[in-house]
Amino acid sequence: MAIPQRTLDPKRDGAIAAAITELTAAFGNRVVTSQAVREQHGHTTTWLPNQPPDAVVFPQSADDVQGIVKICAKHSAPVIAFGTGSSLEGQVNAPQGGVCIDLRDMNRIITVHAEDLDCVVEPGVTREQLNEYLRDQGLFFPIDPGANASIGGMASTRASGTNAVRYGTMKDNVLSLKAVLANGELISTASRARKSSAGYDLTRLLVGSEGTLGIITEITLKLSGIPESIAAGICSFPSVEAACNATIMTIQSGIPVARIELLDELQVKASNAYSKLTLPEKPLLLVEFHGTEAGTAEQSERFGEIAREFGGGPFEWATKPEDRTRLWRARHDGYWAACALRPGLRALSTDVCVPISRLAECVTESQRDLVESKLIAPIVGHVGDGNFHMLLLVDAANSAEIARAEAFLHRLVERALAMEGTCTGEHGVGQGKMKYLPEEHGEAALDVMRSLKRALDPQNIMNPGKIVTLGANPRA
Amino acid sequence: MAIPQRTLDPKRDGAIAAAITELTAAFGNRVVTSQAVREQHGHTTTWLPNQPPDAVVFPQSADDVQGIVKICAKHSAPVIAFGTGSSLEGQVNAPQGGVCIDLRDMNRIITVHAEDLDCVVEPGVTREQLNEYLRDQGLFFPIDPGANASIGGMASTRASGTNAVRYGTMKDNVLSLKAVLANGELISTASRARKSSAGYDLTRLLVGSEGTLGIITEITLKLSGIPESIAAGICSFPSVEAACNATIMTIQSGIPVARIELLDELQVKASNAYSKLTLPEKPLLLVEFHGTEAGTAEQSERFGEIAREFGGGPFEWATKPEDRTRLWRARHDGYWAACALRPGLRALSTDVCVPISRLAECVTESQRDLVESKLIAPIVGHVGDGNFHMLLLVDAANSAEIARAEAFLHRLVERALAMEGTCTGEHGVGQGKMKYLPEEHGEAALDVMRSLKRALDPQNIMNPGKIVTLGANPRA
Repeated sequence: MAIPQRTLDPKRDGAIAAAITELTAAFGNRVVTSQAVREQHGHTTTWLPNQPPDAVVFPQSADDVQGIVKICAKHSAPVIAFGTGSSLEGQVNAPQGGVCIDLRDMNRIITVHAEDLDCVVEPGVTREQLNEYLRDQGLFFPIDPGANASIGGMASTRASGTNAVRYGTMKDNVLSLKAVLANGELISTASRARKSSAGYDLTRLLVGSEGTLGIITEITLKLSGIPESIAAGICSFPSVEAACNATIMTIQSGIPVARIELLDELQVKASNAYSKLTLPEKPLLLVEFHGTEAGTAEQSERFGEIAREFGGGPFEWATKPEDRTRLWRARHDGYWAACALRPGLRALSTDVCVPISRLAECVTESQRDLVESKLIAPIVGHVGDGNFHMLLLVDAANSAEIARAEAFLHRLVERALAMEGTCTGEHGVGQGKMKYLPEEHGEAALDVMRSLKRALDPQNIMNPGKIVTLGANPRA
Repeated sequence: MAIPQRTLDPKRDGAIAAAITELTAAFGNRVVTSQAVREQHGHTTTWLPNQPPDAVVFPQSADDVQGIVKICAKHSAPVIAFGTGSSLEGQVNAPQGGVCIDLRDMNRIITVHAEDLDCVVEPGVTREQLNEYLRDQGLFFPIDPGANASIGGMASTRASGTNAVRYGTMKDNVLSLKAVLANGELISTASRARKSSAGYDLTRLLVGSEGTLGIITEITLKLSGIPESIAAGICSFPSVEAACNATIMTIQSGIPVARIELLDELQVKASNAYSKLTLPEKPLLLVEFHGTEAGTAEQSERFGEIAREFGGGPFEWATKPEDRTRLWRARHDGYWAACALRPGLRALSTDVCVPISRLAECVTESQRDLVESKLIAPIVGHVGDGNFHMLLLVDAANSAEIARAEAFLHRLVERALAMEGTCTGEHGVGQGKMKYLPEEHGEAALDVMRSLKRALDPQNIMNPGKIVTLGANPRA
């Protein structure tokens, strides 16, 4: 992929070095420049090249973040925020070097307001840490992107995942943010009120901005009550189309499904082998319902009726935790099962999202394209949202295969855009999807994004080279 | 209130006149300059002075809107978008004159995608028009701010209303927008996909921006299925606190209440008199549940139990449309009932929103303050969101009373902000709430809003004098 490589630029590199000297004077051994730590922080899970920052700093407070950004701003040195490094499109790469701000030590859960169903956390808190903390109070934070990501990272990439069909994405579950801007100022984007019409929505401007407009230092999140009853079910279908139609009917009927996941034939085959299951090797829907006991029973029954209407069955469902886990094993182990199809190879996860009415078409055309491209990529979909993932298993040593994979990924995005969809439903833009933004948004809207970036970060020091560039010279 | 009056400015007024001449050449009798029409379009429902635009233009397409904005931009003439004029904080006033763009003729419902639960409409479509159109397809658009507002206006003010506790606000129900920017360019903010991580959230930037960043010409909305069963109920409580605590418990218990409205004692008294009801003159909660028959029955029963726990009762509920209407009459006629408390006076609606745990305190302190201020203002609250309205009944001829009312409104906002709330939950900023933004957001965040405004509207022609000004000279 045409990811800009770091060029030699003695002036810029001298400025970065000066910033690091000043940072070291201020933060001592919390500034790390060892090769290994730097490379970890340019971590990517794709075939994007590792582009390490020049130093990594570990702040312990918003004050620290302000101090770091002010020093970097003075020297025009890039700053890249880092959560757990689980982003998928090169969001933490440092194509122009600079200073990585690793927020792992800012991992305090500051307050839980149980009556208001909200909490205030630092950005380094992870999803699992938060849910463990909340469990005793009967509360949970529903956004689950799979990885044990940090809440700051999830906000930055507008993450979502399996529960989004019922609970929304990070866009819907962040009430307010504190963030340090490129000038070192700390802003608070909103009050703790459930809703507000008081001016521009700075919360939503920062959610999904991938550290290019500010560095998140505190997040107020909506929480949900742990449901009294959870019912899980699985059902095989004769075709992807049948499974998608059953999904559409489920949602149209107003059944408040909490999760509805599709595995394609190949993913089911992989799961049978890896998790020692005996599922029919056909497209599989996995569903989960949250509510009262009577409510989840009714929802499960209605879903079963809909599934049968579309040739699905048998529909197995369960409410006991251990039985639910058994039923959903194919989904939980899905990533590892997929990787085991071609052990030792690179597994590249990509995602697109289309209106649900086009989902079956998008999935089946992509499956056909895969076969024609001699590629292997099991599919897992958050089908209630029209969002699906393909895990391409590619031999990184085989340049012809990489070329075929790149061409395939390109057609996948083109296909989604042609169906009124988006190039990424939840992974974000980073470096990997930048090239699709002109086609998706049009030049006029992209110009608006560039204007916003210029207005808030005129020196282009906040995670430069991600989402939008500001001209032929990416620092211009 | 210290609303800037239109000053004499021959240069600006000459430029506006030149713009109107050019507009008339292009749009003929769709440009109207009669005093009556101009004053209608500066309509406010508050005591803000009427500040009419210099002309009103009626576009029929996005092309027309682009043409109008380009002419105005060329002459630096202000442009103010107009839906139905039901905004409450002077959003459509023209403090610096200029050209009002009335979108009433852009009222086509372009497409309904029933499978995707979305539709595409022009901004002049009204809420009732849309719901009438959708009814036969079993769909509805849930946002209900009371007035039969236009969808464009509702998006612009980030409207919400009684259903927001279940269905969210306009922020949550707009999938995508088309809008004409200050430079005349038309942008589309997003695809029709249910979710996306593809760059900055331009949709949410425009929602709630009150025409200060762009003029909305098309809206893609999420729709919901008309519920199979609707149950409505009412229940009196010994105190506002008891009613609020029952609300908190209802929401914490995960009961997916669709509406939960509070009327205070005074509003109940007003409704008894106006609608010939015999409700106990105590705080009243009105609830509505959406779901399956079994589901709404279970929700109603559980709510009844919670209500009893907090001393509420008797809990009356109904599922037949005519019975539901009877139970909710006090809410439906609430505005007129309140006005009838002091006939012939000005009724000034204001709103604030606080975390739900502070709601009882905020309401009761405000009631005490009212008594001490010798003012009358019945209260209606969307209590599931912590949002409530006070309808101040003020004798506009009595300047002492107006002064007391203004001082009261000021304390109301201060009280909400001190409780981590917002100066407006759903009415927006317009002119009336501008002065509270520095305290609510802080200067650093307000500077960000100003930077965004400057970036997208460097000439400050889009609805100037609303939300933020750009310096001592509001046109600077």
